[in-house]
Amino acid sequence: MRPIVGVIGGGQLARMMIPRAIELGFELRVLAETDGMSASLAATAVGDYTDAATVLDFARDVDVITFDHEHVPQDVLTQLVEAGVSVHPGPAPLAVAQDKIVMRQELTRLGLPVPAWASVSTPEELDAFVAANGGRVIVKTPRGGYDGKGVRIVTDAAEVADWFEGGGALLAEELVSFTRELAQLAARSPSGEVALWPLVESVQLDGVCAEVIAPAPSMTAALSATAAMIAQTVAEKLGVTGVLAVELFETADGQLLINELAMRPHNSGHWTMDGAVTSQFEQHLRAVLDLPLGATDARSPWTVMINVLGGPTSGSIAERYPIALANQPTAKFHEYGKAPRPGRKVGHVNVSGDDLDDVVYRARAAAAILKD
Amino acid sequence: MRPIVGVIGGGQLARMMIPRAIELGFELRVLAETDGMSASLAATAVGDYTDAATVLDFARDVDVITFDHEHVPQDVLTQLVEAGVSVHPGPAPLAVAQDKIVMRQELTRLGLPVPAWASVSTPEELDAFVAANGGRVIVKTPRGGYDGKGVRIVTDAAEVADWFEGGGALLAEELVSFTRELAQLAARSPSGEVALWPLVESVQLDGVCAEVIAPAPSMTAALSATAAMIAQTVAEKLGVTGVLAVELFETADGQLLINELAMRPHNSGHWTMDGAVTSQFEQHLRAVLDLPLGATDARSPWTVMINVLGGPTSGSIAERYPIALANQPTAKFHEYGKAPRPGRKVGHVNVSGDDLDDVVYRARAAAAILKD
Repeated sequence: MRPIVGVIGGGQLARMMIPRAIELGFELRVLAETDGMSASLAATAVGDYTDAATVLDFARDVDVITFDHEHVPQDVLTQLVEAGVSVHPGPAPLAVAQDKIVMRQELTRLGLPVPAWASVSTPEELDAFVAANGGRVIVKTPRGGYDGKGVRIVTDAAEVADWFEGGGALLAEELVSFTRELAQLAARSPSGEVALWPLVESVQLDGVCAEVIAPAPSMTAALSATAAMIAQTVAEKLGVTGVLAVELFETADGQLLINELAMRPHNSGHWTMDGAVTSQFEQHLRAVLDLPLGATDARSPWTVMINVLGGPTSGSIAERYPIALANQPTAKFHEYGKAPRPGRKVGHVNVSGDDLDDVVYRARAAAAILKD
Repeated sequence: MRPIVGVIGGGQLARMMIPRAIELGFELRVLAETDGMSASLAATAVGDYTDAATVLDFARDVDVITFDHEHVPQDVLTQLVEAGVSVHPGPAPLAVAQDKIVMRQELTRLGLPVPAWASVSTPEELDAFVAANGGRVIVKTPRGGYDGKGVRIVTDAAEVADWFEGGGALLAEELVSFTRELAQLAARSPSGEVALWPLVESVQLDGVCAEVIAPAPSMTAALSATAAMIAQTVAEKLGVTGVLAVELFETADGQLLINELAMRPHNSGHWTMDGAVTSQFEQHLRAVLDLPLGATDARSPWTVMINVLGGPTSGSIAERYPIALANQPTAKFHEYGKAPRPGRKVGHVNVSGDDLDDVVYRARAAAAILKD
């Protein structure tokens, strides 16, 4: 009767699925890590997602299991599949999202454009890579990094000596001289239907997404087609189901290189909540339930998303609403139910309109009031 | 910290407030009539809204009490206010919405255009009104009617003999020869801010709203200004807070006459969920919390709302999604979590676009698939 979607993880991505589930009449159940999380109002269970018994118990009676994050261990995912649970995205694509070295290997195997990279297991291997790539490179821990964590720019292997001590290989990448960062959002259903939103520009601040402009300004048809081809290839060849975000570097000579992949709704897609006919959260639910996908057209010439990072230094976001709502009546405010903390993503603001400068101004003004 | 809104009544209007409350970070609590209602997923209490103790208990700790319907008795409302609870809309405007004779008296007192009417207490008085108004009039029970219930067209007082037996006066109105029905949606905050959405056309079927076209086609500036003046006057002079819907008749000579008032989000405003910068549900929450109101501009040249009346004769709406979503990828589907039953409002579909004929076609097609 009523489709039941089980979401592992109680963060803001799970939270933002709830409104769309209500509107479409789906039942959403969330396995939250702790009480009081963003998505707690849909949490039917609280428990450890690395514990197979907990997850299998949560997955009983749902039509599909999907995720707020990509960190569920492979053995838990495999046990779900073996128990007959529909899991989207599945263990195979998630294995690629979970390990940055595997990701680089797979993208290289598919012939997709990536920065020069190497898997380095010793300081000597890293120093050789540094020497061969201009003396300054990026090093990433293969697992667990996000929002700039687990990423360092180094000129010498000694700068990641602590990471080498942990054992295992690190990912070394050339420091790409990019002119801007772009993101291509896509969704794919188990039946194979793929939908692509317009290519967007994302502005990072200290490794964290700060702003997104949709569509990407100065976008050529060729750029858009290349980004679409990359995302479609990743989705189809890796068998991704649900929403896929492909973060891209655009270089001075107009090339695109894949920076990161995310196999879930993504910060670069929050603009779709107010700026696209179908939001990434609705589309993710439709995709993982193997329902037909919705139109991804932009609803306005421009939509700008600004993250509210940190939130107010005193009080809550709600206490800023009297000023913020009055100041920017066209802004759409999204609050994640998280306590303000420096650098933390506690909400975002979307503004749509015809004039990009005006839209950027209004979105920044609205977000700024919520911050301080 | 987090504003808490208490909603009395667990129907679809309360349900449709939930997504916006989640997005803005408000806490929504619902006092539902029974288990398993549309808004049950936010129901923190189940009980009888005519029982003052139940309602007072529910209202403890909320920042404001508002409503899914207008049927909470005046003595309960008064006790809430006396207990220091913020109630929006308040008892005084709700008294006008609760009794159609009082409504006609108040609108007449304000000098606003209404059909010829009379409060009739005997068959003789009604027959006199029939004779004076073309031999065929509308009779309404003053209380409890909705969606065509409690309304009859009569040529003779004998046709409402059963209603006279109940005692009390009935409302008699001239049968207005209108060319179409319009609706003006407004919102007003306790501080006095008023926001008006574009005037819309509504198409009724057997006394039930079937379609809404936003904005109303062939709308002149004069028509729009008159409708806006009427709604603003009603909101301000009656002290309405929250969303107000004014249903209007347009006559052949271009006059507007007030048909009905609703002091809550209204079916004629469901188009705003996808078609306006601020939906009526977000605006209602902002208004009753006395927060600044949002922009009410249309997001597309046209948005059409079609009610799903009755639902499928077999199975659930969700079982129709594979066909409906594939057939109409731009349609936004809204499901109320209610069991299908003939004539029952179980959901609605919104479609936006540039070409009215196309938008109407697509919205009707999408809704039709959900019905049969």
